Amino acid sequence: MLLRIEPPYLLFAGDAKDALAAKTGQGIVDWRPERCLGQLRLPGCVADHGLPEMSVAEGAARGAKTLVVGTVGPGGVLPEAWVPVLVEAVERGLDVASGLHTRLGSFPDLRAAAERHGRRLVDVRVPARDFPTGSGRKRPGKRLLTVGTDCAVGKKYTALALERALHGRGIDADFRATGQTGILIAGEGVAVDAVPADFISGAVEVLAPAAADDHWDVVEGQGSLFHPSFAGVSLGLLHGAQPDAFVVCHEPTRDTMRNVPAPMPSVRDVIEETCRLGRLTNPDIRCVGVAANTAALDDRAARRGIEALVAEHGVPATDPLRFGVEPLVERLLNG
Amino acid sequence: MLLRIEPPYLLFAGDAKDALAAKTGQGIVDWRPERCLGQLRLPGCVADHGLPEMSVAEGAARGAKTLVVGTVGPGGVLPEAWVPVLVEAVERGLDVASGLHTRLGSFPDLRAAAERHGRRLVDVRVPARDFPTGSGRKRPGKRLLTVGTDCAVGKKYTALALERALHGRGIDADFRATGQTGILIAGEGVAVDAVPADFISGAVEVLAPAAADDHWDVVEGQGSLFHPSFAGVSLGLLHGAQPDAFVVCHEPTRDTMRNVPAPMPSVRDVIEETCRLGRLTNPDIRCVGVAANTAALDDRAARRGIEALVAEHGVPATDPLRFGVEPLVERLLNG
Repeated sequence: MLLRIEPPYLLFAGDAKDALAAKTGQGIVDWRPERCLGQLRLPGCVADHGLPEMSVAEGAARGAKTLVVGTVGPGGVLPEAWVPVLVEAVERGLDVASGLHTRLGSFPDLRAAAERHGRRLVDVRVPARDFPTGSGRKRPGKRLLTVGTDCAVGKKYTALALERALHGRGIDADFRATGQTGILIAGEGVAVDAVPADFISGAVEVLAPAAADDHWDVVEGQGSLFHPSFAGVSLGLLHGAQPDAFVVCHEPTRDTMRNVPAPMPSVRDVIEETCRLGRLTNPDIRCVGVAANTAALDDRAARRGIEALVAEHGVPATDPLRFGVEPLVERLLNG
Repeated sequence: MLLRIEPPYLLFAGDAKDALAAKTGQGIVDWRPERCLGQLRLPGCVADHGLPEMSVAEGAARGAKTLVVGTVGPGGVLPEAWVPVLVEAVERGLDVASGLHTRLGSFPDLRAAAERHGRRLVDVRVPARDFPTGSGRKRPGKRLLTVGTDCAVGKKYTALALERALHGRGIDADFRATGQTGILIAGEGVAVDAVPADFISGAVEVLAPAAADDHWDVVEGQGSLFHPSFAGVSLGLLHGAQPDAFVVCHEPTRDTMRNVPAPMPSVRDVIEETCRLGRLTNPDIRCVGVAANTAALDDRAARRGIEALVAEHGVPATDPLRFGVEPLVERLLNG
């Protein structure tokens, strides 16, 4: 059993001071609208997910199963001021789920209420179970992994867009979440960065298990093989996912890696290193394209940059947000 | 602060059915005799560390600070039958330390006694603190890492032998333990395989911190970059250690990797991959030799195998147990 969050959700936007603070909630609405029943906003909340406004009582009456904290307080924590709403949710029979660093169980009132009412407090950063060590054995089903030149370059977005595009072609596919926001969106998954180091690849083997031969798991990547803080996570994830295909996610205007003084690797470096290291558990691994995050470029510069990527690497390239992922899907399915 | 175990030790050998069951205790006696005050053996114990026999009361009277479980019960667990001895140790003012999977605190009597007497139960498999994420910043001091073609090929033994040989030449050096047996031997360290995946390299940066320019940390390696279960741990450890030098540990008669259906990599593969991946945090990384575990070979075959390694790789090779580590130290210090 992986960590699972029961839908439908009442999305809690707190008193978010801007849309960015509530971006996790918006991600859920964008990618899994069918899981979202309504939104609960405190006085002063600026974010708006466009869902029906509901109190906890109304949400419970309409069948909400989980109050999902889709926003972040100042400093990335869960403010005390929100706790009474979470307690009320538990008292009215809802689970509470959060991806914040602050553990839900660290609030004594909330923990006591959850125990009293038999509801779950789901901290998606905390792995829900023990995992086996990775077996390295090839399993049936097909898998795609989004990898990156760095952290925060669009690996989750690209994976979700690929899942949607595959569904659009009638192909059986599942997004497999490996980080907290992805888990809240998908409703299940494992935060691989929090798994004890020995079990990284084993956890991913559980997350993306054996499947039908024509089924695609689209696995959300983490970190970068070239990031000095997180390369171990990225390698364990690569070995556990055993991807048949990968997409390199890239932010072409970034000079140094996130939060460390290391130079950015090239897309070429990442393609070669992912192939070399990925062959250990899947000898047939191949790159099916590049997903560039061109938000910092104007339309013309973005198109030129993408054409340059295609010319240099001989694979399709796109900005998933700006131009969609069809070129990647086409290469994935039709060689 | 890393996890630390206070000496001197009263070594608990339990009712070990053979010397192999008590090999952790023997490792402590072999490498850190100055930390060992005496041994405590139950009726039927076959292992003998050659230390003075002591009851818990005698050990406490002579100043023992920690009872160290240096043996393993059937199935790798800590048998209930040993618990009364551990409780007595706590009652007489000793801490208890263990490297077994069974948590010391999982025995209610023992936990209660430890709380009552203010003593520590030290499970060395459990990281003692939170770590930062790795910075990737180069720090002063020199570091050597033992890496491997596989698990269980002599990385800990080689590191300890190198530390001893460096001390023999009057060089300031510290063995840095990354696994449970190494931690019990050194009295401190961090079980990197149990650290949450995001913090592997950060934990190693704490374990082997900035030091004087002529100081050597000899860091115990884990796993293998080619092991499908554990390569993520090995890579994070490599990036965090930032080694100036590494020794490849190898078992020349092994055909497939431990516990998985993967082929053994060659020594050449490991040298090249360690250099390629290690350059991310230390551009000057170099291989200073090969440590072959030739226990399965006769003396002549062992010598021939080692000569072949020297000829093939152009670096010194030895079996540390059989022939010592002087060739490795010579290359390390004198180019």
